[in-house]
Amino acid sequence: MSVSRDHPETLRAQIESRLRGAIRDGSLRPGTALPSTRDLSGQLGVSRKITVDAYAQLAAEGYLAIRQGARPRVADGPFGPEPGARPVPADPPLRYDFRPSRPDVSSFPREAWARCMREAVMEISAADLNYGDAFGVDGFRESLADYLGRVRGVVASPDRVVVTNGYLHGMGLICRTLAARGARRIALEDPSSWEEDEIVARAGLEPVRVPVDDLGLRVDALAATDADAVVVTPAHQHPTGVVLAPARRAELVAWLRERHAYAIEDDYDAEYRYDRAPVGALQGLDPDHVIYCGTASKVLAPALRLGWMVVPPALAGPLRHERMLTDQGSARIEQLAFARFLARGDLDRHLRRMRLRYRARRDALVAALAHHLPSLRVTGIAAGLHVTVPVDDQVAVARAARRVGIGLSTLADYQASGSGTGALILGYSSMSEARIRAGVAELAAVIARA
Amino acid sequence: MSVSRDHPETLRAQIESRLRGAIRDGSLRPGTALPSTRDLSGQLGVSRKITVDAYAQLAAEGYLAIRQGARPRVADGPFGPEPGARPVPADPPLRYDFRPSRPDVSSFPREAWARCMREAVMEISAADLNYGDAFGVDGFRESLADYLGRVRGVVASPDRVVVTNGYLHGMGLICRTLAARGARRIALEDPSSWEEDEIVARAGLEPVRVPVDDLGLRVDALAATDADAVVVTPAHQHPTGVVLAPARRAELVAWLRERHAYAIEDDYDAEYRYDRAPVGALQGLDPDHVIYCGTASKVLAPALRLGWMVVPPALAGPLRHERMLTDQGSARIEQLAFARFLARGDLDRHLRRMRLRYRARRDALVAALAHHLPSLRVTGIAAGLHVTVPVDDQVAVARAARRVGIGLSTLADYQASGSGTGALILGYSSMSEARIRAGVAELAAVIARA
Repeated sequence: MSVSRDHPETLRAQIESRLRGAIRDGSLRPGTALPSTRDLSGQLGVSRKITVDAYAQLAAEGYLAIRQGARPRVADGPFGPEPGARPVPADPPLRYDFRPSRPDVSSFPREAWARCMREAVMEISAADLNYGDAFGVDGFRESLADYLGRVRGVVASPDRVVVTNGYLHGMGLICRTLAARGARRIALEDPSSWEEDEIVARAGLEPVRVPVDDLGLRVDALAATDADAVVVTPAHQHPTGVVLAPARRAELVAWLRERHAYAIEDDYDAEYRYDRAPVGALQGLDPDHVIYCGTASKVLAPALRLGWMVVPPALAGPLRHERMLTDQGSARIEQLAFARFLARGDLDRHLRRMRLRYRARRDALVAALAHHLPSLRVTGIAAGLHVTVPVDDQVAVARAARRVGIGLSTLADYQASGSGTGALILGYSSMSEARIRAGVAELAAVIARA
Repeated sequence: MSVSRDHPETLRAQIESRLRGAIRDGSLRPGTALPSTRDLSGQLGVSRKITVDAYAQLAAEGYLAIRQGARPRVADGPFGPEPGARPVPADPPLRYDFRPSRPDVSSFPREAWARCMREAVMEISAADLNYGDAFGVDGFRESLADYLGRVRGVVASPDRVVVTNGYLHGMGLICRTLAARGARRIALEDPSSWEEDEIVARAGLEPVRVPVDDLGLRVDALAATDADAVVVTPAHQHPTGVVLAPARRAELVAWLRERHAYAIEDDYDAEYRYDRAPVGALQGLDPDHVIYCGTASKVLAPALRLGWMVVPPALAGPLRHERMLTDQGSARIEQLAFARFLARGDLDRHLRRMRLRYRARRDALVAALAHHLPSLRVTGIAAGLHVTVPVDDQVAVARAARRVGIGLSTLADYQASGSGTGALILGYSSMSEARIRAGVAELAAVIARA
């Protein structure tokens, strides 16, 4: 059995349909023991949560018998198609893609980027072509320090700037650096991406989830955790879209100082704020305790594998060592190309164009939801590339939508198990307004049936 | 106190001169306890070996008192300049750079690379601009599979090819993947790069060193280690230049199969073999137990941060998961550019030119050594970018050379402490033939004085 991230179905759906198929066609007989969720996760290279959810779904469908402490077994049949019965169809390909966190790369500024790349290749110094500073090329670090100071209020000098291969890469570097310095526990927002728990655990640290409410991270709950660091999305909580309230910011900074702890600030989509100026970075309040993280994945394209951090001076030495042992730095010609892209004003131009485009798509989504699903309250609309729509039966709606070719995420994909109420997470970045309207109309029909 | 990898002095020399200066000018007084080598390594972000060596040197010079089990202390003085004494001069800047593992990037084919980059930017698909397969862009993996099959006899299909950010990055991914599957111990060649011990240890595995003799890795010693995997440089041992003998290859493959172990084959400089065809990759003998690793750092430039692995199918799933959690893949436009560079024959052309250039430099170095130092036996000359020159007092010669502006490495930089005899490692890739001749003349004078 194998699964693929390139497959149009989710990993969990692939596992379910493979097992369902094997049970139905008799290759897995009633009573057969299956691998534990841990073993299956390891074999397939997927997270534990995915195999747990897949087994739970198959148990709910009657294919598996799950007993605490025992290996899951194929339930007592009979299974398989009755004579003349039609096979269960696989999920159809996606017709509407509301999945979040996928920028519209069809607008990638190819001409401008090609020009910057050419200049970078022709002008890069011999020293920079060789092994250089693992933190990145000087010219790019200077550009980033200026840009982040200007746009995000980050306290940045070039020697604090570290070029990464994207946010999760930087987060892993920081976790391993903090672990080597004696940290034991890192707090994560609940909800947040499941990858973060695994990255923390693989660095030898214990992840603990701290709830988020309408004012953002609950600092009182954080203070009860005994954590040595916290990952936080102050400008626009991921995925709920809540902005960390001013009083909470002050509480958080006070906690950081008292505990000598670090905050990892994931400023993942500050560039996309539509109705007013974005809130400045938390890092500006306490640059010695906050590690600022940003990425080119949302503003340009994930393919660049470029991100950046601004780190307290105390962490620079150990972090450089960690970076040398991890991958010795990010692709250097691309860094210089990005520096030119910033210097020419190409990034500001590109972002102005994309903000207009994404705002129009957001407006189309919000209007279509108001029209077709007037009873639902849409939140998280002020910024980013997705909105949040609270519903009771999030998982059932998502499954029913998927069966008719509508892709979306749910809050359940980000929640610690059992926590919080349900919501659909609807991204609007990768479809035209007309497709968004048509997709919402079909989604409304799915919800009406559910 | 801080040190920098960009400084002309080695990290160890920087630590020594900082501490020596502080002791001499009285800012560190006699009896003052210094940080342990472990703490100092952590603070400065350097390997433990560097601080151990620096402290040992300062103790040897009388500045430090070191007692087993106690923190090192500043020795009883007096120190500091006598009235009118002249300050100890710092090491001068490098005039001759014989340090190994630094390709001549002055010959980087800027025009050809810029053209390939432009084509890649204009032609990359929207899917590839977004998050794609963490193993790399399909077109590049296909090119690599063809190239490695043709040039290195690697058994490669595109689905086995994993694009990395260079050799050490790939090695870390593999170590963590093996650790997650239950591996405990990894054998490393002695000598080999010190970074490898640290990467293994940080993956939660125990590194064990296995000696290399004139036939390459001692497989009998490997078999006594109980290791679950071994890192090996069969085509050209790093840094001694020994080729793994055919009988040893067969023994190694038999060991891998019997023990169900993996070999990580670091094929770091197979492209530079001057006098006969390079030995084919070990991976071709046993593609289910050998992970093949190559890099663009030596053939083009370290700045690209591109490398590749060919992995057994059994490791693909867990490795993809590990990669998703580490950095989600390598820069994708650069991968397509490299695919074009291969397809156009640009790489073959570039390598033909560089082989001629490096061979001329090697010949100049070998001739100059024979002329100025006729009693020394030069080895490891058949391939790569450096030669090995056995000497008794390797560290003393290296220090004396550094004081007159000659940079080189020694076998001690690669040996487990206490093992083996001494040698100078002299790289010839980054200087002209005239500079090489002049440098050897000065080095001979240093050795004559030593």
